[in-house]
Amino acid sequence: MAETIFSKIIRKEIPANIVHEDEICLAFHDVAPQAPVHVLVIPKKPIVSLEQLEQEDAALLGHLWLTIQRVARELGVSEGGYRVVVNCGADGGQSVDHLHFHILGGRGLTWPPG
Amino acid sequence: MAETIFSKIIRKEIPANIVHEDEICLAFHDVAPQAPVHVLVIPKKPIVSLEQLEQEDAALLGHLWLTIQRVARELGVSEGGYRVVVNCGADGGQSVDHLHFHILGGRGLTWPPG
Repeated sequence: MAETIFSKIIRKEIPANIVHEDEICLAFHDVAPQAPVHVLVIPKKPIVSLEQLEQEDAALLGHLWLTIQRVARELGVSEGGYRVVVNCGADGGQSVDHLHFHILGGRGLTWPPG
Repeated sequence: MAETIFSKIIRKEIPANIVHEDEICLAFHDVAPQAPVHVLVIPKKPIVSLEQLEQEDAALLGHLWLTIQRVARELGVSEGGYRVVVNCGADGGQSVDHLHFHILGGRGLTWPPG
């Protein structure tokens, strides 16, 4: 897997506005927010995209979703609601080759989702 | 948890264009597609939303994501790319109170995601 900006954020070589960190994942504010709350949750394990997920990553995925839930609560969007988006590949609009989950909230998200 | 249209689809009381089914989850085409490929993946376990996920659901979440990957491959959008969207609550635009993952592909998804 090629080096990405997210690898550098994980290693603290590039600053980020971090909202949660543990041994498995990191959550930080998106630098180009599309909603009042727009946070990215990424695994520290260098997984390129959804396409590279394997059976052994099941526990990791569970942890990422519980982290999403926790971050949404901490940032005050749980009650009002929020949207989680994962882009995979060109048509999905994936811009960094490191799996990341967008959490967007603080405004009414419209439909279709892009 | 209140009865939803998805409970009825799971019990086959309402027809749906099903693309995958196993003991844990069901995947079927969205009735109001927003892209050439637009499929919903839902757990059979009646979970209202992301907010109701618990630690014990980690394995379930892993299974759902591997199912998303599998369905994307079977429907031919893995190579071109796709977007996965989960709406939670009012601001997220959640329309059915049963956790569901949207897979959208077959066209370039735009940004922001709603």
